[in-house]
Amino acid sequence: MYRPQIKVFDCTIRDGGLINNHFFEENFVRAVYKALSESNVDYTEVGYRNSKKLFSPKEYGAWKFCDDAVIRKVVDGIDSKIKISIMVDVERVELDDIKPANESPVDMIRVASYVKDVDKAIHMVNDFHKKGYETTINIMAISRDQGPDLDEALDQIEKESNVDVVYIVDSFGSLYQESVEQLVKRFKSSIKTKEIGFHGHNHQQLAFGNTIEAIIHGANFLDGTVYGIGRAAGNCPLELLIGFLKNPKFDIRPILDLISKEFISLRDQIEWGYIIPYAISGMLNEHPRAAMALRNSDKKENYREFYESIIDSDLD
Amino acid sequence: MYRPQIKVFDCTIRDGGLINNHFFEENFVRAVYKALSESNVDYTEVGYRNSKKLFSPKEYGAWKFCDDAVIRKVVDGIDSKIKISIMVDVERVELDDIKPANESPVDMIRVASYVKDVDKAIHMVNDFHKKGYETTINIMAISRDQGPDLDEALDQIEKESNVDVVYIVDSFGSLYQESVEQLVKRFKSSIKTKEIGFHGHNHQQLAFGNTIEAIIHGANFLDGTVYGIGRAAGNCPLELLIGFLKNPKFDIRPILDLISKEFISLRDQIEWGYIIPYAISGMLNEHPRAAMALRNSDKKENYREFYESIIDSDLD
Repeated sequence: MYRPQIKVFDCTIRDGGLINNHFFEENFVRAVYKALSESNVDYTEVGYRNSKKLFSPKEYGAWKFCDDAVIRKVVDGIDSKIKISIMVDVERVELDDIKPANESPVDMIRVASYVKDVDKAIHMVNDFHKKGYETTINIMAISRDQGPDLDEALDQIEKESNVDVVYIVDSFGSLYQESVEQLVKRFKSSIKTKEIGFHGHNHQQLAFGNTIEAIIHGANFLDGTVYGIGRAAGNCPLELLIGFLKNPKFDIRPILDLISKEFISLRDQIEWGYIIPYAISGMLNEHPRAAMALRNSDKKENYREFYESIIDSDLD
Repeated sequence: MYRPQIKVFDCTIRDGGLINNHFFEENFVRAVYKALSESNVDYTEVGYRNSKKLFSPKEYGAWKFCDDAVIRKVVDGIDSKIKISIMVDVERVELDDIKPANESPVDMIRVASYVKDVDKAIHMVNDFHKKGYETTINIMAISRDQGPDLDEALDQIEKESNVDVVYIVDSFGSLYQESVEQLVKRFKSSIKTKEIGFHGHNHQQLAFGNTIEAIIHGANFLDGTVYGIGRAAGNCPLELLIGFLKNPKFDIRPILDLISKEFISLRDQIEWGYIIPYAISGMLNEHPRAAMALRNSDKKENYREFYESIIDSDLD
């Protein structure tokens, strides 16, 4: 698949940070940034920008706050064309904390929003746009939120926002490719002047397949992470996406090296990937919260009990 | 997805046997058989029938030979409606070793064949059919063998054989869903009087997604294995397939128990699943042979070198 508009968007440090409270060593982030730059990936998202009034830097690592100075230090001296992104959650960032783009190492700001918060998300992206950033709105938990409010939200984004990309986010890893096809078509019927993006979760081993499906139907911004790192089952493995795309600008080799040198040992320290309780969350269209709690308990392999507890709570 | 014709076909012991030379303990096979029976899976394949003139029972476990007596012992006393299958390779079985179906615990015999061997496969299935077995022809390595010979082979199977099912086998785990769609349609254009089956390999995490794709386009025999066990990256995880299919006869719970009790510890002893050299084999459409050798060497994590060695050998 070669379509020049396609952008490969890495979110290794950002989504990976959700499993270690964003405590990545500076050298590790630098190694990721360097390898991705050499691979000619288009964007890399290094974390969240959160208000330090809401979260304590004692409890969370630097990549939950992504101060411009911290980012500058990590990328310093590395020859790179890759664009840098940070993510913000609705109501968790002070707009005044975001300087104009030309004073910041950040190129893009992505706003993660539920359908119900889309007015706030639009207000935010318009502010960031005015400051010179590229922007996206990432509509989370889409598998649970497909009523008429979704179409209203999309129409509003199209009319009222200056956003560049609108993302379908399969937060629960519960979409199958037919639902991805339908969602991309539905997004495209409202969103005419902006790009569509897709961010998969791998609970049912469908993040890569669903990303391919999104590409086929016209999504051009594609999220992935190195070795699939990310919350719960993780994301679309970036190396598979690069292997699939035929654009000769991409080079998979620096990513292979990075996995050899950094990610095999990291996976022994923190857990992500195909793990049955996450698969159960995905097939039952549930937030992985309960499964993540299970994995931190002494019942981590009690799959049947976990399955039945979710089925039962749905019946309540 | 609920289509009454759909059959879920487990090949845990058969494909899993490829990574431990078929040395599964009797109790383990019994536990698998019992759980699958309780889950109402339609078929389970317990191994290969190979000539003992070709392979030594000292080097290989019982499930490379699948003597009727061994199968009988394992299933004895378990209440079950599941059908039992064995696989044979072209020219590796003595036809006289196959007794009539009514004297055997086996219900189905699957013949694994390359396109070039399809005459031999037809001869074999017709013999098995006469003896009273259900049969399939599984066309291996389909990603490498899509020339006009494939259509000839399919036409021949349709006209000259009494086979029940013709399988698309993605031996190298290199198909994407678009190729699966094309292949199912191509098979259906020749094969009018038999069912189509799909057997995926998970090198690129696409076995489940490709199986869904095959279902959408009309394949009714669907292979999977418990926890995805199988050669190299393994197969479509049976538990995901059961989670996807909406036929209320299937019960996922016994499979969840089986994974908790047997497969988590087994995975610590033998290796399968998402491992970068297998992903590389898949994306480069190569047999996983070289990747399997790499995993048994001291260079097992040298991904870049491995990738370059395959690219270079393709240029020779």
